Amino acid sequence: MILEAVMLYIKPGLECEFESSFKKASKIISSMDGYLSHELNRCLEIKSKYLLLVRWKNLESHTVGFRNSPEYQQWKALLHHFYEPFPTVEHFENIQI
Amino acid sequence: MILEAVMLYIKPGLECEFESSFKKASKIISSMDGYLSHELNRCLEIKSKYLLLVRWKNLESHTVGFRNSPEYQQWKALLHHFYEPFPTVEHFENIQI
Repeated sequence: MILEAVMLYIKPGLECEFESSFKKASKIISSMDGYLSHELNRCLEIKSKYLLLVRWKNLESHTVGFRNSPEYQQWKALLHHFYEPFPTVEHFENIQI
Repeated sequence: MILEAVMLYIKPGLECEFESSFKKASKIISSMDGYLSHELNRCLEIKSKYLLLVRWKNLESHTVGFRNSPEYQQWKALLHHFYEPFPTVEHFENIQI
C-alpha cells in the first residue's frame, strides 16, 4: 500500500467552489484500478490549504494507471485551475511502528 | 476529530536512528488523553522525509494537553534533535466528500 500525499493551496476565495468540484472529482479517482481510499482535509491555520491523502494498492496504480488514463484528463479539468502554486505530489510508505 | 500533519526532514544518515527513537516516542503519544491514532510514513522520493499523521479527539488535546504535559518533554528529548529544519505542525479537519 502506498500513500499519496499532497498539500493543495487553493486560490483564496475559491475554496467552496474547489470543494464542490472535488466532490465530482472524487468519483473519478474512486473508480480507478488500484485505488483504495482517499480523504480531503482542510487546514485550520491556513484556510486556503488542504491535505489530500490517497491510498493506492501500489505506486504504479497512481503514477501509471491513473495519470495515463482518460479519467485523469477529467480530474485535471475539474481541479487543476484551483491550485496556486501547482502542487508537488509525493508518495509514502508506512513505517510499522 | 482533528488531524495533525507534519512533514519531518531528518538529518541525512540518521533515518534508522530516528525510526528507532520514534518507536519509543510512539508509546508516549499513544498514552495521551484525546489521542486516537497515529502513523509514520516515509517518502519514496526524498528518503530523509517523513509524514507524521496523528489523529486527536480535538485540537486542544494536542496543543494544550500534550504540549503542556511532562510527557512532551520526553517526546522532545527523543525526537527534536533529528529534525532539520525544525518542522511546522499543522492541523486539519476532514471534508466529508
